Amino acid sequence: MKIDVLTLFPEMFEGVFSSSIMKKATEKGKAAFRAVNFRDYAEGKHKVVDDYPYGGGAGMVLKPQPLFDAVADLKRSAEQPRIILMCPQGERFTQTKAEELAGEDHLIFLCGHYEGYDERVREHLVTDEISIGDYVLTGGELGAMVVADSVVRLLPGVLGNEDSAVKDSFSSGMLEHPHYTRPADFRGMKVPDVLVSGNHKHIDEWRRTESLRRTWERRPDLLNTADLTEKEREKINQWNHEKKLI
Amino acid sequence: MKIDVLTLFPEMFEGVFSSSIMKKATEKGKAAFRAVNFRDYAEGKHKVVDDYPYGGGAGMVLKPQPLFDAVADLKRSAEQPRIILMCPQGERFTQTKAEELAGEDHLIFLCGHYEGYDERVREHLVTDEISIGDYVLTGGELGAMVVADSVVRLLPGVLGNEDSAVKDSFSSGMLEHPHYTRPADFRGMKVPDVLVSGNHKHIDEWRRTESLRRTWERRPDLLNTADLTEKEREKINQWNHEKKLI
Repeated sequence: MKIDVLTLFPEMFEGVFSSSIMKKATEKGKAAFRAVNFRDYAEGKHKVVDDYPYGGGAGMVLKPQPLFDAVADLKRSAEQPRIILMCPQGERFTQTKAEELAGEDHLIFLCGHYEGYDERVREHLVTDEISIGDYVLTGGELGAMVVADSVVRLLPGVLGNEDSAVKDSFSSGMLEHPHYTRPADFRGMKVPDVLVSGNHKHIDEWRRTESLRRTWERRPDLLNTADLTEKEREKINQWNHEKKLI
Repeated sequence: MKIDVLTLFPEMFEGVFSSSIMKKATEKGKAAFRAVNFRDYAEGKHKVVDDYPYGGGAGMVLKPQPLFDAVADLKRSAEQPRIILMCPQGERFTQTKAEELAGEDHLIFLCGHYEGYDERVREHLVTDEISIGDYVLTGGELGAMVVADSVVRLLPGVLGNEDSAVKDSFSSGMLEHPHYTRPADFRGMKVPDVLVSGNHKHIDEWRRTESLRRTWERRPDLLNTADLTEKEREKINQWNHEKKLI
């Protein structure tokens, strides 16, 4: 998979594109990353990328020309890349969207910074608009890194077995149960007895119950779609009842 | 504000901490960033930071000792920093949370990578657990960057006027209206006539309507809490009606 990012701050990507999962994906030949400064595509001596908004108002607007020309250059061949605009108005990013994008050959991210985008970029250039959450960021760069990371780790052969568990726990539709490792007593803080009991039936039951409890406490919305037994539904009713009594 | 990140991949932060808003905040003396490898705090010759989970299962778990000792070292003085664990089970990050954290003097982020955290870190060390969204990332690093960016831009004196508009548009509770800049005709794609009319009353009305329309199309949930006039509510009812007829 080719992943290109159009940005005015390509240096932001250096550490991220050359570490951890992105490094691994590059070394294994599964992905190739580029951060391209779209200022290099701006016409005119001064390489201006933004201008005042029509109709007045505060803030600057990114001109369409550098972005259109940069995308045209990056996709030269006959391929049809996904052209993804990172913006607060975009579709909320989800794991389902990550899985969809993982099936593509080429992603091009457009990252604005401070400024708005000229609407013609939205209407005539991009294929997707994505927001990673309801919070204000300085630019689209961190969002592009987030989307790229979540997509790249889904590419076949990128991840080892070490974290398949994390993935599985998410697909169960519930939050993960607590984990503990050595020492069993860390400065007076102890591991639950059941986990050192060696009784695997009890351990499995404890983990499932704690996963259920954590989901109930923190993300009850997930329980609507989680795959629960009749007994587990009863347990939740009981917890809800106890909570009301307090 | 001091922002420290505990991570096994400090090099990921180099580009982000030294560019754009973070660079500006550092130069203005408003914030100081450090990425610290908590492996440096691990006891023993081999500086091991993870171990097998009690009770068995796939995946490794981060040992409590290096994280506890790293935090103790970073907060040496009498101060009480916010100690923030980045994890999928955490509270969903929002702009309200960003505003809350912007009032603090010292943030310490804990970033796991692949592995789970020992539960004692959650119970006895951290003050906050944050998730930036419902998608799986390789580690907490990108989340820490996202939270840091959204907080730092709220610190007084960090941002210039150039993007105050972006902030305002979010606080109105609606998505932004479309923006356009020169040329008025870009390769046959034209700017709406009203924006080049010079009639500011019409421009304001057009912008408000387009902001309303975009919010209705893309994020109708925001309309429940948006501050709308009677006439705007009527417009939405009309759009809903037209949509059903199609």
